[in-house]
Amino acid sequence: MSTEALLTSGVVGSWKIVMGRLDKTIGRLTEAQLQERVAPGKNRRLYLLGHLTAVHDRMLPLLGLGERLYPEIDEAYVTNPDGALADPVSVDELKAMWTDVNAKLTAAVEKLSAEEWLEKHTQVSDEDFAKDPSRNRLSVFLSRTNHASFHAGQFALVK
Amino acid sequence: MSTEALLTSGVVGSWKIVMGRLDKTIGRLTEAQLQERVAPGKNRRLYLLGHLTAVHDRMLPLLGLGERLYPEIDEAYVTNPDGALADPVSVDELKAMWTDVNAKLTAAVEKLSAEEWLEKHTQVSDEDFAKDPSRNRLSVFLSRTNHASFHAGQFALVK
Repeated sequence: MSTEALLTSGVVGSWKIVMGRLDKTIGRLTEAQLQERVAPGKNRRLYLLGHLTAVHDRMLPLLGLGERLYPEIDEAYVTNPDGALADPVSVDELKAMWTDVNAKLTAAVEKLSAEEWLEKHTQVSDEDFAKDPSRNRLSVFLSRTNHASFHAGQFALVK
Repeated sequence: MSTEALLTSGVVGSWKIVMGRLDKTIGRLTEAQLQERVAPGKNRRLYLLGHLTAVHDRMLPLLGLGERLYPEIDEAYVTNPDGALADPVSVDELKAMWTDVNAKLTAAVEKLSAEEWLEKHTQVSDEDFAKDPSRNRLSVFLSRTNHASFHAGQFALVK
């Protein structure tokens, strides 16, 4: 493997580790446990699961990797805080969306070349990208990996 | 900048964003706020700060970047759970250690070439590294960036 390919495979490997741990945590939680808040007055784990699913789904168009799969959950889990709207889908449906989104995203990023990782994401203009070439797919992907870890730390607080 | 340099600078950039946010959070917390638990029965923020400082300090030898700076805090913040031992240093001393460790680490990783990022870390044998070349500096660093994000999510739970 080339130096470039080893670097990008390290980045994707880190994402896969974070997703694998979240999958394990989420997989063993019952519906009642998903309805619990991570701390008093804070988000339910179910909200966090919806939030992460929607944010990862948004990465498909943001990274130029395809159309969104489940835009219908944004209102409940991104635009509004927990509790403002009813959960739009069942727990099982949401778990299936989570698995589907991550599988599609992971398969797509595994095919990117080093040069493609460094191309601009779709929400930055050519002009702004010329000024700041760090506004690329890689920075979005690393940022979302950290975002998932951030919420994983909250998931972990409840037994 | 070369493709390789852009990739590694993206990785360091992601670390700097996570550290910058943590610095901001930690900087505005009073001693009383640092003594609060992130959730009932969970770690104090001060413990998390000590834990992250010690884990980052350990990266210096782990990545072959230098000697440890503050091994004296491991007992309280890595080896033992929160509350088992008294805090070994004052809040101000711990904050200064946190800043110092991250500054040294960031300065050192910024100098690594792409090839150096892919070299084995110091806790893996030549034989094991030959079998699994992903056991390199990059994977440790990405893992620790995610680890910091994980605890940042817990820090964020308390106002």
